[in-house]
Amino acid sequence: MRLVVQKYGGTSVGTPKRIVKVARRLLETQREGCQVVAVISAMAGVTDNLLKLAHEVSPHPTKRELDILLSTGEHAATALTAMAVNALGGRAISLTGAQAGILTDRNHATARIANISPKQIHGMLSDDYIVIVAGFQGQTPEGDTTTLGRGGSDLTAIALAGALNADACQIFSDVDGVFTCDPRIVKEAKKLHEIAYEELLEMAGSGAKVIQSRAVEFAKKFGVEFEVRSSFTKSGGTIAKEESAGMEDVVIRGMSLDRHQAKLTIAGVPDKPGIAGRIFSNVAAAHIVVDMIVQNASISGTTDVSFTIHEDELENARKILMPVVGEIGAKRLNTSSGVAKLSVVGIGMRSHSGVAARMFECLGRGEINIQLVSTSEIKIAVVIDEKDAERAARLIHSEFGLARLMSAAAAAQPLT
Amino acid sequence: MRLVVQKYGGTSVGTPKRIVKVARRLLETQREGCQVVAVISAMAGVTDNLLKLAHEVSPHPTKRELDILLSTGEHAATALTAMAVNALGGRAISLTGAQAGILTDRNHATARIANISPKQIHGMLSDDYIVIVAGFQGQTPEGDTTTLGRGGSDLTAIALAGALNADACQIFSDVDGVFTCDPRIVKEAKKLHEIAYEELLEMAGSGAKVIQSRAVEFAKKFGVEFEVRSSFTKSGGTIAKEESAGMEDVVIRGMSLDRHQAKLTIAGVPDKPGIAGRIFSNVAAAHIVVDMIVQNASISGTTDVSFTIHEDELENARKILMPVVGEIGAKRLNTSSGVAKLSVVGIGMRSHSGVAARMFECLGRGEINIQLVSTSEIKIAVVIDEKDAERAARLIHSEFGLARLMSAAAAAQPLT
Repeated sequence: MRLVVQKYGGTSVGTPKRIVKVARRLLETQREGCQVVAVISAMAGVTDNLLKLAHEVSPHPTKRELDILLSTGEHAATALTAMAVNALGGRAISLTGAQAGILTDRNHATARIANISPKQIHGMLSDDYIVIVAGFQGQTPEGDTTTLGRGGSDLTAIALAGALNADACQIFSDVDGVFTCDPRIVKEAKKLHEIAYEELLEMAGSGAKVIQSRAVEFAKKFGVEFEVRSSFTKSGGTIAKEESAGMEDVVIRGMSLDRHQAKLTIAGVPDKPGIAGRIFSNVAAAHIVVDMIVQNASISGTTDVSFTIHEDELENARKILMPVVGEIGAKRLNTSSGVAKLSVVGIGMRSHSGVAARMFECLGRGEINIQLVSTSEIKIAVVIDEKDAERAARLIHSEFGLARLMSAAAAAQPLT
Repeated sequence: MRLVVQKYGGTSVGTPKRIVKVARRLLETQREGCQVVAVISAMAGVTDNLLKLAHEVSPHPTKRELDILLSTGEHAATALTAMAVNALGGRAISLTGAQAGILTDRNHATARIANISPKQIHGMLSDDYIVIVAGFQGQTPEGDTTTLGRGGSDLTAIALAGALNADACQIFSDVDGVFTCDPRIVKEAKKLHEIAYEELLEMAGSGAKVIQSRAVEFAKKFGVEFEVRSSFTKSGGTIAKEESAGMEDVVIRGMSLDRHQAKLTIAGVPDKPGIAGRIFSNVAAAHIVVDMIVQNASISGTTDVSFTIHEDELENARKILMPVVGEIGAKRLNTSSGVAKLSVVGIGMRSHSGVAARMFECLGRGEINIQLVSTSEIKIAVVIDEKDAERAARLIHSEFGLARLMSAAAAAQPLT
């Protein structure tokens, strides 16, 4: 019998009515002849409310207690989902992360899965139960509840699918799948039929958040294929999988746009070991997330270091870095907000040359100035003026024929 | 070192501010040189909200799942309380009922405590932790969460105090203790310094709900003394304990008033075995709670059976009983709403005669008609017209000198 793991996020179980809808879908899947394991997140809003309460009783809530507090959101949602299945004439049982056999390390709030012993799940499945597992959580060897970090239910689902050797792992959310680009920016954007883990990782790191990055890394490591799809429709989504030969034929899988970025450049930085460390440790200590870092080649003993952050953090970063510039003997700090990062992603870049050139030329024809460039093996990211961002996205989308290519792929492999 | 178990109800932890207040009190108790175990209920309103959600996804929620759902309320409150203690510079840890070693039977929603192994609590106390235990819940031998019924946190506290051999068990709530009568009815009502378990049970069964009856029964069975006191003030409360010789000197400990009652009399009931069973099984099947039952002596082969219920249930009961009256060959059904039950309670009744006579005479002087009488060894209850109820309460309170007696007792044993 086919074993399917389905994960439903907070929006999908956000109201009692939606919980009943999820319950119906679980029953349908079972009636199609599958064994069903569901991984459920807390109802939308619940986790934020609990966090708010925690901060009202403590400025720095104890992490162990915060994990217990937050995990109640998932416990409640799983119990409600199991009740809903039972009310529809089904047979469901809810399990905590601990009961599902998810053992983690002792790092509260960001625990890593150490081991999964899904004995109890197997037993319940044999008894024809739909098994509803609380996402986002596990248990230390001492029996303390831990959580896996924001979006951790994705990880629960993928890890369980791996441990159960499931035939399918479906991540349901409020988006239809992964798109070539955000359809709100480029209306020709197409839903991808498939995507390689690495591409999804680069896309997720570039603003197209459909799934927790750690979950994708886990899937990649253990080769767990999964599908991102909508809980509001019946249409198929995007399947994330190990790259295969055919996948490299598509040069660019998709692109993403991060707006509201700020660019900082420290000019005339002495070209000595340890300098970059001093700059970025100061920034990290203030919990400012740094995205792109670019360092140019050294000319006459000094270099320029540029990086991007969210523009809300700019004032804070400037205050922190002004004294640092003096201490390290750099010349000056230039900052500018109102920039955006445009990234194109595709494993095809490995075997196709000239992708960067084609991208730069395309932007040049559109008179769009490139302020920074950073590349990885499968990604090219450029920083441009925010006011040019949407136009740039449309130009690139068209240049690489993303709408056309995907339609062809979709026609070749009909969605199921 | 003194070991104190303190229980805080939903109102006491109803807001983040109140949780911080509870945390302060726990720390004060520890600083006075005590080991502290706190038992915490769900924040006021949380349990009702969860129940509402459950009924929105299922007309008859699965009991196992309902227990998991409801127990999250206590998990959250304990985690928040532990955070609050830690934020104040203390050292606290929260435990679920399962972690606290509370093993129950498998009766979800109304589980009974089978055994308590508080090994983990002892360990934490030795490490100077304030241990915060989730009330109202336990675990089956299979590891499923169970709940102990409404008000079950009282039972958790008393059972833990017994298992830990605690020096004191303090039940904090929004009332100052047990009073001779409801102070809203009789303004001279005095807080009792002490009360026997059995008296408290009879008072609790008569509308003076300060603590769950099962918790009192448990305390009586295992001889666990406990104090009912207010979480909003510093003053001492009422100590519930095994009756002692001195306690019998007080004839009447207190009294309570149940209003909005209805009285039903089935007249001319054939005096045969099985008839009462037929009457009350019909009423019970409709989930109508019957309070007082009175059956008079049989005269010429028939008798009259009277009983009281809440007046909201009267119409329902009448519909159910009309056909039964015919079936059992009784003459007729008389009903009247707008009556009240006045009960006086005291273990002193066992050794003092004439209490009933004195009560009836007092009501007679007040021209208050007694419609039904029922007695137990330590209680006399009468049904009277609702419009006379408050006046009757004041007359009886004065007749037995309840305000005076308690003041004397309080003077003799200063509250601590």
